[in-house]
Amino acid sequence: MLTAAVCVALLGCLQAQELQGHVSVILLGATGDLARKYLWQGLFQLYLEEAGKGHSFRFHGTALTNTKQGQEIIAKVLESLSCPRDTAPGRCAELKAQFQQLSEYRRLKTPEDYLALSKDIEAWVQHEGLQEAGRIFYFSVPPFAYADIARSINSSCRPGPGAWLRVVLEKPFGHDHRSAQQLATELGSFFQEEEMYRVDHYLGKQVVAQILPFRDQNRKALDGLWNRHHVERVEIIMKETVDAEGRTSFYEEYGVIGDVLQNHLTEILMLVAMELPLDISSSEAVLGHKLQAFRALRGLQRGSAVVGQYQAYRGQVRRELQKPDSFHSLTPTFAGILVHIDNLRWEGVPFILMSGKALDERVGYVRILFKDQAYCAQSEKRWVPAQSHCLPQQIIFYIGHGELGGPAVLVSRNLFRPSLPSASWKEVEGQPGLRLFGRPLSDYYAYSPVREQDAYSILISHIFHRRKDSFIAMENLLASWVFWTPLLDSLAHEVPRLYPGGAENGHLLDFEFSGSHVSFSQPPLEQLVPGPDSAPMPSDFQVLGAKYRDSPLISAWPEELIARLAGDIEAAAVRAVRRFGEFHLALSGGSSPVALFQQLAMGHYGFPWAHTHLWLVDERCVPLWDPESNFQGLQAHLLQHVRVPYYNIHPMPVHRRQRLCAEEDQGAQAYAEEISTLVTNSSFDLVLLGMGTDGHTASLFPQSPVGLDGEQLVVLTTSPSSPRRRMSLSLPVINRARQVAVLVMGRMKREIALLVSRVGREPRKWPISGVRPDSGQLVWYMDYDAFLG
Amino acid sequence: MLTAAVCVALLGCLQAQELQGHVSVILLGATGDLARKYLWQGLFQLYLEEAGKGHSFRFHGTALTNTKQGQEIIAKVLESLSCPRDTAPGRCAELKAQFQQLSEYRRLKTPEDYLALSKDIEAWVQHEGLQEAGRIFYFSVPPFAYADIARSINSSCRPGPGAWLRVVLEKPFGHDHRSAQQLATELGSFFQEEEMYRVDHYLGKQVVAQILPFRDQNRKALDGLWNRHHVERVEIIMKETVDAEGRTSFYEEYGVIGDVLQNHLTEILMLVAMELPLDISSSEAVLGHKLQAFRALRGLQRGSAVVGQYQAYRGQVRRELQKPDSFHSLTPTFAGILVHIDNLRWEGVPFILMSGKALDERVGYVRILFKDQAYCAQSEKRWVPAQSHCLPQQIIFYIGHGELGGPAVLVSRNLFRPSLPSASWKEVEGQPGLRLFGRPLSDYYAYSPVREQDAYSILISHIFHRRKDSFIAMENLLASWVFWTPLLDSLAHEVPRLYPGGAENGHLLDFEFSGSHVSFSQPPLEQLVPGPDSAPMPSDFQVLGAKYRDSPLISAWPEELIARLAGDIEAAAVRAVRRFGEFHLALSGGSSPVALFQQLAMGHYGFPWAHTHLWLVDERCVPLWDPESNFQGLQAHLLQHVRVPYYNIHPMPVHRRQRLCAEEDQGAQAYAEEISTLVTNSSFDLVLLGMGTDGHTASLFPQSPVGLDGEQLVVLTTSPSSPRRRMSLSLPVINRARQVAVLVMGRMKREIALLVSRVGREPRKWPISGVRPDSGQLVWYMDYDAFLG
Repeated sequence: MLTAAVCVALLGCLQAQELQGHVSVILLGATGDLARKYLWQGLFQLYLEEAGKGHSFRFHGTALTNTKQGQEIIAKVLESLSCPRDTAPGRCAELKAQFQQLSEYRRLKTPEDYLALSKDIEAWVQHEGLQEAGRIFYFSVPPFAYADIARSINSSCRPGPGAWLRVVLEKPFGHDHRSAQQLATELGSFFQEEEMYRVDHYLGKQVVAQILPFRDQNRKALDGLWNRHHVERVEIIMKETVDAEGRTSFYEEYGVIGDVLQNHLTEILMLVAMELPLDISSSEAVLGHKLQAFRALRGLQRGSAVVGQYQAYRGQVRRELQKPDSFHSLTPTFAGILVHIDNLRWEGVPFILMSGKALDERVGYVRILFKDQAYCAQSEKRWVPAQSHCLPQQIIFYIGHGELGGPAVLVSRNLFRPSLPSASWKEVEGQPGLRLFGRPLSDYYAYSPVREQDAYSILISHIFHRRKDSFIAMENLLASWVFWTPLLDSLAHEVPRLYPGGAENGHLLDFEFSGSHVSFSQPPLEQLVPGPDSAPMPSDFQVLGAKYRDSPLISAWPEELIARLAGDIEAAAVRAVRRFGEFHLALSGGSSPVALFQQLAMGHYGFPWAHTHLWLVDERCVPLWDPESNFQGLQAHLLQHVRVPYYNIHPMPVHRRQRLCAEEDQGAQAYAEEISTLVTNSSFDLVLLGMGTDGHTASLFPQSPVGLDGEQLVVLTTSPSSPRRRMSLSLPVINRARQVAVLVMGRMKREIALLVSRVGREPRKWPISGVRPDSGQLVWYMDYDAFLG
Repeated sequence: MLTAAVCVALLGCLQAQELQGHVSVILLGATGDLARKYLWQGLFQLYLEEAGKGHSFRFHGTALTNTKQGQEIIAKVLESLSCPRDTAPGRCAELKAQFQQLSEYRRLKTPEDYLALSKDIEAWVQHEGLQEAGRIFYFSVPPFAYADIARSINSSCRPGPGAWLRVVLEKPFGHDHRSAQQLATELGSFFQEEEMYRVDHYLGKQVVAQILPFRDQNRKALDGLWNRHHVERVEIIMKETVDAEGRTSFYEEYGVIGDVLQNHLTEILMLVAMELPLDISSSEAVLGHKLQAFRALRGLQRGSAVVGQYQAYRGQVRRELQKPDSFHSLTPTFAGILVHIDNLRWEGVPFILMSGKALDERVGYVRILFKDQAYCAQSEKRWVPAQSHCLPQQIIFYIGHGELGGPAVLVSRNLFRPSLPSASWKEVEGQPGLRLFGRPLSDYYAYSPVREQDAYSILISHIFHRRKDSFIAMENLLASWVFWTPLLDSLAHEVPRLYPGGAENGHLLDFEFSGSHVSFSQPPLEQLVPGPDSAPMPSDFQVLGAKYRDSPLISAWPEELIARLAGDIEAAAVRAVRRFGEFHLALSGGSSPVALFQQLAMGHYGFPWAHTHLWLVDERCVPLWDPESNFQGLQAHLLQHVRVPYYNIHPMPVHRRQRLCAEEDQGAQAYAEEISTLVTNSSFDLVLLGMGTDGHTASLFPQSPVGLDGEQLVVLTTSPSSPRRRMSLSLPVINRARQVAVLVMGRMKREIALLVSRVGREPRKWPISGVRPDSGQLVWYMDYDAFLG
């Protein structure tokens, strides 16, 4: 019982008027692994730190276990608690006894049990003449139990008016965006967002918790460096040597991405990348800036990741989950991800996130490598490491383990001498022969915590102090799933590369990036990727040449198809510029051309952009800056990356006098006039078309009589889908082109591709069938999905 | 004498019909250093290689030395010639005797001497029953002698019709663009361009000569790598340990840039950077592509270079040139230059050119370092150098000397196995312990020439074979000077950093780059830069704050002024975007803003471009793509480098319906309408103006009644200078801006600046005096030249 005597014994006498109220901590799942290993210790720590500062405490461990058994378990746990390092043994026993007195086990199962608990707390508070300050419910239970518990707390166990409620939740918070959203909605019906503390225990790790303070305390040195002009790359890494044996039922559901990347590594990424608030002690500012950084993340695509699976995994899954020998798990146990952040600070800087099980070492770190932008005039053997700007310059937040064996912050001596709070961080002692990240340890200023602290102890203290920035806000959680879910979806059928595990992995899991694309550095070892798993890969096929509607057909897997089309366009451009000094290219919008734009933007040095005119095949009647605008896609994926002169760019004038496609604004006529003026005979050098599932092309839709014949070069049309109003090149002007390319991709196009292959020229039914350049060439580019189904 | 007998003795019997004519080689300056050291040996080599293949030869060494003395010198030189390594001594003596028989010395001074030589050659040819094939004149004489010799050759010593003339010229070819042009014009009056062979002996060095063939033979591996996506940087380096002692009279005129960078290193740069012709054996294609690459070089500025001078240099100059102790040479003996190439292949890749005397080692190399775009999943101690993509990947053309001790081509084993002609290149033998560019030699595929050959021997053979691509074409030479001259001009008054020389230089000459700007990594050591030499530098001055026409005046040296203005504009932009979500900036054309545009483009990553609207203050009535268009300047120097959305760019519609500023096209009205629609209250956030020497601003000219008052926002005006028709914002709309900045730079503006400081508001006389923002702020930015004269 907390009495004045205890108070005196513990930390000195408290004046009655200083009492700030009573706090109840309810640890749900108090007999479980996590609770026994970390949480009780964390609560003891909280008690030691806070009990002398005005609050009184009681700790209620609860579970479904019956009371007697539960009490026995808890008694053992409490007996094994440890005191701070410098506590004398006798004193420690005394402190533990106090804590044991304030702690109890009780079974908590039915709503009635919750009501009883609540009443007990109230009775106690009254009995002791205290005010209730608040209640902390720590959910150390599986997520499926969340809803029931939450309902019971909300209905039967909230503290009275004036006292706060805090519920602490442990991941996993869903396994994709939908499930996370569902969970959030569910919990949101019982608790306010401000009542919820979602734990990512990495945010409690000392080095991780130091990232923002480090950035803050070294603002002067970092201000000029912490950006794309100076940062070469950022690596956020968590390597494990253990595998998933014994945990495959969990692992099968989450994989390495759900287990580590979506939460721990993403949170760290945010701490590195976010704009630094002026006041980092403001939780609101920190969470707000973090959310901003989430919004700047470039979407992940299938090509953003490489995934692997250690060879023993499938056997473990079969055994543990009683699966037949024919069962092949596609769950990745290794992932390397390339993240880009599309803001001015980070644009173009690769952020590499990597984690895996059964690797060669256990280590976690964040490494910020700076660009080498120096030339050293002397022979390298004369370089002085602390002075030479030609040696690597890096900052490493060493989370733990690895060759260093514990947490540390490292800064290359040729960069700057960092400032860290000297009360809690001390210089690491030299370890001769130890090399880290390519350099001897002596090349770094290296600091480690004076006292190593467990992440949970730190977080429990932060919960008590309402430091919400150490927890995952709901918006933050959903933003993270918005970011990861598309990748998870696109990996769902990807066969991970098998790896033997440990040092034997060799260079098998090394990966490389180029643009937004990552790939393994080494080709797969045949013996490691046996037959059954290896679906035929695109590059195994040749580009197929054939006929479609009496015109040449190029068919291939998407990547090859796009490469071929880009190459053909470049060749046409070079030819046209050589002959006429300019190249007039009319482009369609939509999703298929995006890959083409990217290919043209990245891979074609010889493309005569300075002499190329870009026209639109069609446009939606939205402002040019609308995300739905075709022009916007062209701008984002092509124009931003190549040097087409401003006046060679010809967006369709759908937006004039602040109106969209108003007949009286004569946008179509103006575009037609621009074409007749600049394009000889109004004959484009190349027109790129697509084909809709209804047989439309450009914005010429079936059953619509507009633009299929007649004199008009440009017409206003109506689409069956929103936004309905469109501007489009007419069929006659398309058919005047020297070359027309039709790009058709995806399984959804299969039916129409088949149908159109059989019909004659019926543009009213299928406008695409009206595409027959008068004197020019027509080529169909179809991927296998569209062509072969 | 060349007879059939000699022919048999030498290389086998020639059929009479195979005789391809007689070649005379006239070596001018035959007794000089270069001739004695390299040229005679090169001619002997030529004779050995070619005499058996159908041509007959004679070699005429000439100089101003009298005949007897000259003959003695030549006799000695010929005696000391060396045969190829595998020639037996007896055979060698025989060959030398043959060559001596065909060689003579003669004095060549007056036009008559040249005529006599010509007659002698003709007589000989006739006497021997030969046809004359051609004459090679090798100018191994100082440049001041070129003109007279050239005149004499042209007037008195050309071969008859059907035979060719080749004149071989040695650098220096001028010391800036003007002098080079002059020399070219002068020589052009005597010789055709195709007759001239300008030697840069670096092009004859085996490794340099191998660059293009290497690129050609390894096309498959290099095609994907040789570009900005993969190349991290290129270093082109020539370090010397010797100093300029004994050569200061030459060195004072040329410095390290004229001596090494403008010629040797620039030529190498071109071989690396140029587009690779399909057929590299076509001299025409090679020279054409090289010239293309020259044209893509980004102009050098003062900030593109760091320069140094070894400490002993000034004393050497004083002694050798009899200068007083007060003489301070500013000639650089060390230079580090950052070159950028503005084409799609190389944009953004730093090319570092560096050369210096009195450095710590003698070495020359070209190093192409590839980007590290890999992440290696294993601990680095397990990396296998030949496989790991995380270790440096580089290609090095090792020109010579250094720790390797001779020429070599090195390719990292983790890159690819290069193909080199196995007849002439062999693998370098291992040298345990030798590290090059951060890695042991064993990490490279390393090849060296089977037989080391002297550059001059190679070039003499190329002259004979008309391989013009190994020489400097005139266009090429002038392009090189166009590139270098602005830097030389801007360095003319720069005080080079003093360095002690050798290993003692430490890190003193290390330099760093950021954007287009290079600077020494270390601050100057005070004791090395004593007082007398340090002229006050712009940065020693503070930006001056004062008043001008009752408004704030910022005055500084140009660079600081531009930096300040750019900073102020960025601050205004950030403020406006924070408050209103957008920033409307109206910019003037002309030359002063160009520096501003460049500054904004390169140095301001916090600038909210995505939310900035760019307007024109005025425009010339020319198409937007005309070089005279203000918009064109904006596009070239700003828009190309930042991401302003297309629809936020507002060029003035001076060109409508294919007409320029026709009243009936209502361009001014359209622009006014665009302003009123998009800009709240038609009040720009910031308007940047200039001031003409006649007091005009925007395109509002004195004595013109247009646009000075009234309701019109945009007006058509008339300029006193061509192109006369203009479109301009009116004074009223300028005065509605929240902020107006007037940028005035250059000595030419001094008078008007003084005048305008004294007048009242008289816009009809001086339109600039009408600039008085109604409620906004006006700031004058003037450089010291304009403000202080």
